Amino acid sequence: MTSAEDTVLAYWDACEARDWPRFGTLLADDVVYHLPQTRELIEGRDAYLRFNQEYPGDWHLRVTRVTGSGGHAASSATFSVGDEQQPALTFFDLDDAGRIARITEFWPEPYDPPPGREHLVTRYAPGAAPID
Amino acid sequence: MTSAEDTVLAYWDACEARDWPRFGTLLADDVVYHLPQTRELIEGRDAYLRFNQEYPGDWHLRVTRVTGSGGHAASSATFSVGDEQQPALTFFDLDDAGRIARITEFWPEPYDPPPGREHLVTRYAPGAAPID
Repeated sequence: MTSAEDTVLAYWDACEARDWPRFGTLLADDVVYHLPQTRELIEGRDAYLRFNQEYPGDWHLRVTRVTGSGGHAASSATFSVGDEQQPALTFFDLDDAGRIARITEFWPEPYDPPPGREHLVTRYAPGAAPID
Repeated sequence: MTSAEDTVLAYWDACEARDWPRFGTLLADDVVYHLPQTRELIEGRDAYLRFNQEYPGDWHLRVTRVTGSGGHAASSATFSVGDEQQPALTFFDLDDAGRIARITEFWPEPYDPPPGREHLVTRYAPGAAPID
């Protein structure tokens, strides 16, 4: 069977290609997409496909990491719209047939570091991130 | 050799226990802790131990997910200080000796969902998160 890591790579590849039929074949009928930061749930393949198809903006994505084993995996991807970039951190749970049954996704935003740890830290310039 | 997943579980267990000597044995000498949101890097075991030892607040953590294979893993944990909770998403890269060489961590904050997707989404109440 395809590994969870390969399934996640195929998922992101189909997403970037806007190949929604192929994207849909990777999803369980009752897939649940969970956004803990907004407390949102999207339930079922049809709703989740529509959410992706309707998502506004000329976004593109680049996968920076995938790790997993068995029926679980996690990925890090960088989404960009023009010059704006944002990371997306995603956890995947697969069902026994190897289809994606649960997606838990986080969209962290930049913030200013709290004071008091300058003696331990190096800061790099915006856009100069080490490859990750 | 210990799996990457087991190493990550041991890391979080030692962290919650404030067992810094044990925590330190899991880290490579030249470990790098990277916070992409603040563009901060902490380099070396001594600095990273000190960062953790000095971190303010009576924080506690609960690991909610660990997935990985080979020299890589990812985890999701919930940190709490009193009634406040926040997720931490962490990616780990291990060196050939199985020690943690790179930690890339994200601290996502709640945000309000953008309008236009209400027809596809269910929102749950604060604190009512499905187990994840």
